[in-house]
Amino acid sequence: MKPWNQVTIIGVGLIGGSLGLALKKAGLARTVVGVGHRQTSLDEARQCGAADRTTLDAADGIRQSDLVVLATPVGRFESALRAVAPALAPAAVVIDVGSTKAAVVPAMESLMPDGCAFVGCHPIAGSELRGIAHARADLFDGALCVVTPTDRTPHHALDRVVQTWARLGMTVRLLGPDEHDRLLAEASHLPHVVAAALVRAVGAGAESLAGPGWADTTRVASGDAALWRDILMSNATEVADAIDKFQGVLGEFASALRRGDAARIESLLAEAKARRDQRVRHKPV
Amino acid sequence: MKPWNQVTIIGVGLIGGSLGLALKKAGLARTVVGVGHRQTSLDEARQCGAADRTTLDAADGIRQSDLVVLATPVGRFESALRAVAPALAPAAVVIDVGSTKAAVVPAMESLMPDGCAFVGCHPIAGSELRGIAHARADLFDGALCVVTPTDRTPHHALDRVVQTWARLGMTVRLLGPDEHDRLLAEASHLPHVVAAALVRAVGAGAESLAGPGWADTTRVASGDAALWRDILMSNATEVADAIDKFQGVLGEFASALRRGDAARIESLLAEAKARRDQRVRHKPV
Repeated sequence: MKPWNQVTIIGVGLIGGSLGLALKKAGLARTVVGVGHRQTSLDEARQCGAADRTTLDAADGIRQSDLVVLATPVGRFESALRAVAPALAPAAVVIDVGSTKAAVVPAMESLMPDGCAFVGCHPIAGSELRGIAHARADLFDGALCVVTPTDRTPHHALDRVVQTWARLGMTVRLLGPDEHDRLLAEASHLPHVVAAALVRAVGAGAESLAGPGWADTTRVASGDAALWRDILMSNATEVADAIDKFQGVLGEFASALRRGDAARIESLLAEAKARRDQRVRHKPV
Repeated sequence: MKPWNQVTIIGVGLIGGSLGLALKKAGLARTVVGVGHRQTSLDEARQCGAADRTTLDAADGIRQSDLVVLATPVGRFESALRAVAPALAPAAVVIDVGSTKAAVVPAMESLMPDGCAFVGCHPIAGSELRGIAHARADLFDGALCVVTPTDRTPHHALDRVVQTWARLGMTVRLLGPDEHDRLLAEASHLPHVVAAALVRAVGAGAESLAGPGWADTTRVASGDAALWRDILMSNATEVADAIDKFQGVLGEFASALRRGDAARIESLLAEAKARRDQRVRHKPV
C-alpha cells in the first residue's frame, strides 16, 4: 500500500507513541506529527523516534495530514476532534484507538467535515503501563485489531485503515460498534472490574500473604483509574450486565463448595482450564 | 545450621523437585531421596539433580531420613503418611508443602509415631505449571513461607524447619492452621475461583477478542483441576465466605455503573490501583 504522507497522532502515550514508532519502522508514514498537552512527553516522543515533529497546538498539528489518530483517553476524543475538525485536510481520514465504540463512533462521525472519513479502531494491545517511556515499535505485532465500520464509512478509507493495521502485524476483525462493545464488556472490561474488585475484597492481612497468583489476577488493576473510568462509563450497561453474568458463575462455585460437591468443583475447574489452555495455545496472548 | 542427613521428598513435581534442587544447592541435605508413583518422573528428578536416589516404595524411601517432605497434592497426604509412618526413623521430622492447613495439620499430627514431629508448611511459590520439568533451585528464593505450628509442635523441630526455609531465601511467617486457611482463602483460593469463573463467564465470541488483560487475569485457571479441587474442598467454607465478600464488592461496581456514577467508579479503581501498586512496590510478587 501507498504510505500515508503525514500522520498526526493526538496523544503520544503508550499506544500513540508505539503507533508512531511502528508506522515509521514499517515505512507506512513519511512524516509523523505528535500532538500532546505536555512538552516533556512531546520531547520524549521526538527523541525516541515516535514523532518527527511535535506541537502543543492540535489544529496546527493536523494541517495537511492525510491520517489523524485520536490516541487520548476515550473521554477526551470529542473535545479533541471538535478542536481540530475545521482544520482537517480535504479527504483526511480520522481514526481512534479507544476501547469503546458504541457511543464514540456516531459522535465522531457527526463531527466530521464533508469529504473526511472517520473509522473506529481498537488495537487490543498495551498493558497496565502508561506513557511514551513504555512505547515500543512491536506493541501491535501479533495482536488483534477490531475495526468498527458503519454505513457512513467510505470503503476506500476503511480499506486503507485495515491494510495499515495488517501491515503492523495485526489480525484485523470487522465488527459493528455495538457488537464490539458487547463483546469487549466481557473480554476486557469485566476482567478489569474483577481485578480491581479482587484487590478491594482481599483484606490487608490476607494481602500480606498474596503470591504470584494474586499478582497476575490483579495486574490490570494497576491501570490508570481515570482512563478506565472513561472506558467503563462509556460502556456501563454492557459491563454491568457482564458483572451480573459473572456473579451467577461465582454463585455456582460458592454453592458447590457449601454442599461439599467436589465433583462439581473439579468439573468447573477442568472446563475452565481446558478452555483457557485451548485459547492460549491457539493464540498466545 | 547443621544440614539434614537424609531428606525424603514424597512427590517430585514442581514444588518437590524444586525443593530437592534448592536443598542440595544450599548444602542443607547430604542426601535427597525422591519418592513417586511414576518411574519417568523419578528418572527425570535424578537426572536433573533434584534427588540423589529415587524409589517407587515410599516406606523404603523414608527409612533413616531425618526429614520427610509431603509434596503430593493435599488430598493424598493422609494415605501417603499412613503408608510410611511405621517406618519413620526415631525423631524424624515430617513437613508438608500443601496449600491448606486447618484440616491437614491435626490429621497428620494424629498419625505421627511418638518421638517424631509434624510441622505444617506452605511455601507460597510456584505457578500454573506442573511437574519436575519446571523445577528450579531458585523457586523459593525471595518468596514467603507460612509455617503453622500447634501446641503439639516441638520447639526444636519448629526451629530447624523455620531455619531451613529461611536458608532457601524465604521470608517465614508463623500462623495458626485456622488463621492460615482464613487468610489464604482470600489471598490465593479466591483468586483461583475468580480466574476460573471468569473463563466460564466470558462467551466464546468475546473470548476470541481477549487480549493480555484477560490472559493475566485468568492465568491461574490453567492450574491442575484435581490439585485445586483438593485445595478448595479442604477450605470450602472459608472460600465460599470469601466469594460472598467478593460478590458484594462486584455489586458496588455494577450499581455505580448502572446509576452512571463516574466519580464512584473512579474512586473504586483509584483505591484498587493504589493498594496494588503499594503491595507490588513493597514486595515484588
